[in-house]
Amino acid sequence: MLVSALLTSLGINSGLCILFFTLYSVLRKQPINYDVYIPRLVAEGKQNQASHFRLERLLPSPGWVRRAWILSEDELLASSGLDAVVFQRLITFSLRVFALAGVIGIFVLLPLNCLGDQLEDVDFANFSNNSLDVFTISNVKNGSKWLWFHFASVYAVTIWTCYLLYYEYNYISAKRIECFYSSKPQPHQFTILVRGIPVSQGSSVSDSVDKFFSEYYPSTYLSHMVVRRTNKLRGLIGESKKLYKRITHLQSDPNQQRAGCCGCLGLFRRHRADLVDQCEKKLGDLEENVRMQQSEVSSSEEETRAAFVSFKSQYAAATVFHLQQSVNPTEWVTERAPEPNDVYWPFFSSSFMKRWIYKIVVIVACILLTILFLIPVVIVQGLTNLNQLEVLFPFLTSILKITFVSSVITGYLPSLILQLFLKSVPPIMEFLSSIQGYIAHSEIIKSACNKVIWFTIWNVFFATVFSGTVLYQVSIFLDPKSIPARLAVAVPAQASFFIAYVVTSGWTSAATELFRVIPFICSLLRRPCAGNTEELEIPTIPYHRDIPRILFFGLLGTTYFFLAPLILPFLLIYFCLAFIIFRNQFINVYRSNNETGGRFWPNVHNSMIFSLVLMHAIAVGIFTLKKLSMASTLIFPLPVLTLLFNEYCRKRFLPIFSSYSAESLIKKDRQDENDPSMPEFFSKLVSAYQDPALMPIQYSSGRDDTRTTPLLSTEAEAEAEAEDGDGDGDGEEAHRF
Amino acid sequence: MLVSALLTSLGINSGLCILFFTLYSVLRKQPINYDVYIPRLVAEGKQNQASHFRLERLLPSPGWVRRAWILSEDELLASSGLDAVVFQRLITFSLRVFALAGVIGIFVLLPLNCLGDQLEDVDFANFSNNSLDVFTISNVKNGSKWLWFHFASVYAVTIWTCYLLYYEYNYISAKRIECFYSSKPQPHQFTILVRGIPVSQGSSVSDSVDKFFSEYYPSTYLSHMVVRRTNKLRGLIGESKKLYKRITHLQSDPNQQRAGCCGCLGLFRRHRADLVDQCEKKLGDLEENVRMQQSEVSSSEEETRAAFVSFKSQYAAATVFHLQQSVNPTEWVTERAPEPNDVYWPFFSSSFMKRWIYKIVVIVACILLTILFLIPVVIVQGLTNLNQLEVLFPFLTSILKITFVSSVITGYLPSLILQLFLKSVPPIMEFLSSIQGYIAHSEIIKSACNKVIWFTIWNVFFATVFSGTVLYQVSIFLDPKSIPARLAVAVPAQASFFIAYVVTSGWTSAATELFRVIPFICSLLRRPCAGNTEELEIPTIPYHRDIPRILFFGLLGTTYFFLAPLILPFLLIYFCLAFIIFRNQFINVYRSNNETGGRFWPNVHNSMIFSLVLMHAIAVGIFTLKKLSMASTLIFPLPVLTLLFNEYCRKRFLPIFSSYSAESLIKKDRQDENDPSMPEFFSKLVSAYQDPALMPIQYSSGRDDTRTTPLLSTEAEAEAEAEDGDGDGDGEEAHRF
Repeated sequence: MLVSALLTSLGINSGLCILFFTLYSVLRKQPINYDVYIPRLVAEGKQNQASHFRLERLLPSPGWVRRAWILSEDELLASSGLDAVVFQRLITFSLRVFALAGVIGIFVLLPLNCLGDQLEDVDFANFSNNSLDVFTISNVKNGSKWLWFHFASVYAVTIWTCYLLYYEYNYISAKRIECFYSSKPQPHQFTILVRGIPVSQGSSVSDSVDKFFSEYYPSTYLSHMVVRRTNKLRGLIGESKKLYKRITHLQSDPNQQRAGCCGCLGLFRRHRADLVDQCEKKLGDLEENVRMQQSEVSSSEEETRAAFVSFKSQYAAATVFHLQQSVNPTEWVTERAPEPNDVYWPFFSSSFMKRWIYKIVVIVACILLTILFLIPVVIVQGLTNLNQLEVLFPFLTSILKITFVSSVITGYLPSLILQLFLKSVPPIMEFLSSIQGYIAHSEIIKSACNKVIWFTIWNVFFATVFSGTVLYQVSIFLDPKSIPARLAVAVPAQASFFIAYVVTSGWTSAATELFRVIPFICSLLRRPCAGNTEELEIPTIPYHRDIPRILFFGLLGTTYFFLAPLILPFLLIYFCLAFIIFRNQFINVYRSNNETGGRFWPNVHNSMIFSLVLMHAIAVGIFTLKKLSMASTLIFPLPVLTLLFNEYCRKRFLPIFSSYSAESLIKKDRQDENDPSMPEFFSKLVSAYQDPALMPIQYSSGRDDTRTTPLLSTEAEAEAEAEDGDGDGDGEEAHRF
Repeated sequence: MLVSALLTSLGINSGLCILFFTLYSVLRKQPINYDVYIPRLVAEGKQNQASHFRLERLLPSPGWVRRAWILSEDELLASSGLDAVVFQRLITFSLRVFALAGVIGIFVLLPLNCLGDQLEDVDFANFSNNSLDVFTISNVKNGSKWLWFHFASVYAVTIWTCYLLYYEYNYISAKRIECFYSSKPQPHQFTILVRGIPVSQGSSVSDSVDKFFSEYYPSTYLSHMVVRRTNKLRGLIGESKKLYKRITHLQSDPNQQRAGCCGCLGLFRRHRADLVDQCEKKLGDLEENVRMQQSEVSSSEEETRAAFVSFKSQYAAATVFHLQQSVNPTEWVTERAPEPNDVYWPFFSSSFMKRWIYKIVVIVACILLTILFLIPVVIVQGLTNLNQLEVLFPFLTSILKITFVSSVITGYLPSLILQLFLKSVPPIMEFLSSIQGYIAHSEIIKSACNKVIWFTIWNVFFATVFSGTVLYQVSIFLDPKSIPARLAVAVPAQASFFIAYVVTSGWTSAATELFRVIPFICSLLRRPCAGNTEELEIPTIPYHRDIPRILFFGLLGTTYFFLAPLILPFLLIYFCLAFIIFRNQFINVYRSNNETGGRFWPNVHNSMIFSLVLMHAIAVGIFTLKKLSMASTLIFPLPVLTLLFNEYCRKRFLPIFSSYSAESLIKKDRQDENDPSMPEFFSKLVSAYQDPALMPIQYSSGRDDTRTTPLLSTEAEAEAEAEDGDGDGDGEEAHRF
């Protein structure tokens, strides 16, 4: 790729970014867009929805940047939880790593590479005609003494990264424990999930649980809640909710309706009244059906062999969780309970074998997905080699001759196509994780995050580097001793592609994140049809999409900083954008939900260690290739030491992320004992893990709590409403506590 | 190798076996050999040492075979513990596996192989001139339909082995729990070992432990015992024991001395009296020194940061063991305590980092050992190829031409040399395991056992099969996709070597185990010098030597049964010998010590699964080589299913072997509560984990409890003696409980 192609890509993307930023600065101030750009503020009542028109609303202003910048970590922690803090720290960690790497790369390595003459001299006169390769290590003369600077920089950046990794792990684990101490008592800390409950003939699961825990934990056992099969019921409830929505839509203001998308004027007005009656009747039937099903499910026949069991202290719950309960390890299997609103009810398989088989199926599915995904990647790779394209499609030759077209095709298009395909991966991985048998939304997201990281590394990095068939790639990994040599040849060759990738994928993704393109378009389309009857939905941040992306850029930065230092400024700009934009989104858009307490960090750590070791492997290959075998030998201790460092961190910090220590649990329990609200807490704890499908249907939630259906006003519902009074508007699965 | 060479080896070994058996039958009846052949019976007082001479004592008799045969499993369990039962079950398991494999191999596969004519027709007239290859699968015609019998037998044996593995795992885990329920309360079940104890300035480790457990476990904490650095003290005690032995030797009957090896007659008699005086004075000084050191060590300066902490119930101890105690996972690290007499005091490193570094050092040492060991293996391999030898040493040509010599060299010598080198491996591995940071003798043995298994598989199996340099071997494993093909070529080629190996190594090892060659020779040499003053030492069975051997024969049987079924009869004979001989040795020779409760079995299971998968890999290669690609494709599901089966077993049974369930612990605790001897037990528990080096020196133990030294009869010692009154004579580290 030539410098000109890179400049084209840079131009397009910078333009897009500036456009998005300007549009955002204007549009976010229009009350009509509050649902898209500041749903969180609106839900929290911090922003009045209807404010008067002022001229400055039409001028772009950077005030939001300032607000995002001054947000302190404690504020973020208080408003969005530890996960958001960890996410922010991941960005600042990356910034720190690449600040040093950037200084070394730009001021030391880049001049050295340019001054080399292995490939060609830099044509300073016609700068944009230079191949990007002259800025890479390939341009340094073989066996040159200058390569020792590259060698030293590999050591320096590795040590710096490891130091920062240690510092962050230490900081986040301390933060995690601090949060635990300062938190109010929460139901999931007093509860465990038990699966594989053996049932003797004639007794129910509930009896069995009661008998077991009353016998062995008489002093600490509090209550239990058996999980029931509610998939059918869930379907019915979904149907009636849909129907309810339709009725409210039909009943809503006819004036607004007239201006609607369908253009249905007075013609159908009478017809509509009939329709509403009809629908209401149908809804009544459905609700009757739901109530029947609920009472049916509540009978013992629909019990699964799983139950949430609550205890009187957190230490007691932890004890039961850590010890194998039954003589048969496949029975009475204990698991940490998720938060009540984090429970993933739909796929609640309780049998040991079933979950195990599903897990294997998911692994196979992931492998298949990886193989199928290579097809678009290979096509994308074809585009970067224009000659190949011309051979395949000779009729394109004339078009491809135009400089701008060829620049776009080689510089911008490949990344864009890859980008679009990659968009589909996080949802697919989320789906796969959800059938893997996790019981918590947060666990599903965490597992999906991990899957997406490795998928991206494999399918974007390795597939691009070793462009070829799956079998070819696999064959490389089946021949491990040649990996460094192959990497050394293939990785620098793709430097220009990845520089363009950072610009296209990174910058654009940050800008679209800010502008929220898809929600904005949806809101535009929905507005004329639905009016204001739609509920305000506050989104949650999709960690499984954003963390892998940032980590992948970390991998690119780590592996390329000494090969092609030109990538670093673009990366640093990306991280700066991400820093400001995500802070802004945490303030304005995303709600905190399903807190994991920073449990994403070990995945981040592992991924960074992998990047470092990969970088060392490439360094070994490069120095061998560059005929500086002394340097390639001296690199060898580095991966060994890095892996030992990783092993040490695993021992030192990982246990903190998997469970709390006895010391802190006992301390917390003693602290709670003095809390006067504990009796009330325990009385609520008993029913905390009730399946929402077994509760009376609630058609609305959040800010429109007052607008309950007139069809349903039984006493039971009134009670449920009352209990939900302190709901914080967390969408459909409002925190019932 | 020709049939004749095999027959030579067979002849030599059968002769040796018969010789050993006959000698054993006679010698074991001589009272002078009781110490060698029935030390256990003597120690238990079941055999009177001095019985009168009868003629039948000189005639070989097979009575011991009958006695070993009729020993029931319950008797074995009662007398030698669960580990002995597991060991015996390993032998019967192997017998069962190879009974089916033997029937299939001998009656179906062997005739098919012989009737094939890929290599040559069998020369029935001059049988011993046939190459052994005609009995292997290599002789079946390529692409022959007969190979489907081999295919079916692979499936049949795999299914049969997996069924038996499941059955055994199930049986042994049930037995383990049964033993736990029926056992008396034991100190190690109430105790945990805590390492990495943080100490604040000015306080001692003991205070720190007391404070921590009194604060967090006030209701269950009983007592603790800080571990102290006693290496120096141990050296002094060793010295004084040596000196004491010398004094008793000098003081012993001069008449016997006169007939001694040194031939020192009356000349030195006066001189000896002086010597005794001198030694006794020196001993007195030493003991004074020991007592001073003991009081010094007991001061807090020599405390390590580790302590044994005892609790009032087993469930409490298990809880503390399973939960991470401190916020910092490298502090207050808990570990299961071993039995008091199983503690390995010498190498008691308490720091987290130190143990970790030692572990890495041991791994590196193991790798080095493996590399160095290949040298003798390569030489051995040279012997099986006589031609190579003739090229290297031309002067040997004339000798090698003699049929018998060449038969011995190719058939017997290679296995013997390998055998001798292999003898040194278990002690080395035991030493390596001991510096790895294990705190129990039984753990060391278990870890050594595992090391020896993999060492044997790698260094005997793979090194023989892929005879060549280490680098060549490593390069094979770095190119995994070609492994089946290479195995298919190399493995059948070594069939004759391994058949000879079974006969030489297996049969001879069984026979020498019975005859106890080395202890017998030692006893012969020692007898004239030392007379009867030597203490009777009851040996323990070296599981880390015998389990790997049996497992390795299992591996050979599994991988070769369909390639060279001729190996099976020899294997079956070996297992039958082992069956009888080890039973006999458990009755007569070995004491039970350092019980692990059957925790060897998971290692056995893993090794068998590895053998099966290796066999499948070879089968894939073989069927491809034999041009029956359909069969090689159809083998593929087999390793996958085997590994899934293994995974299931890991989940189903492995937890039972790592710890007892809460259910059983609570049940046991309740059972113990009703035991009237518990207060006494607890009062003993407080001092159970006292370092023996800090107790008054005891010069004798076991059967000669009455012969305590006259130099040491303080009150403290009298107490210690009284406490040790119920000692069961378990050698030096008598069970102090």
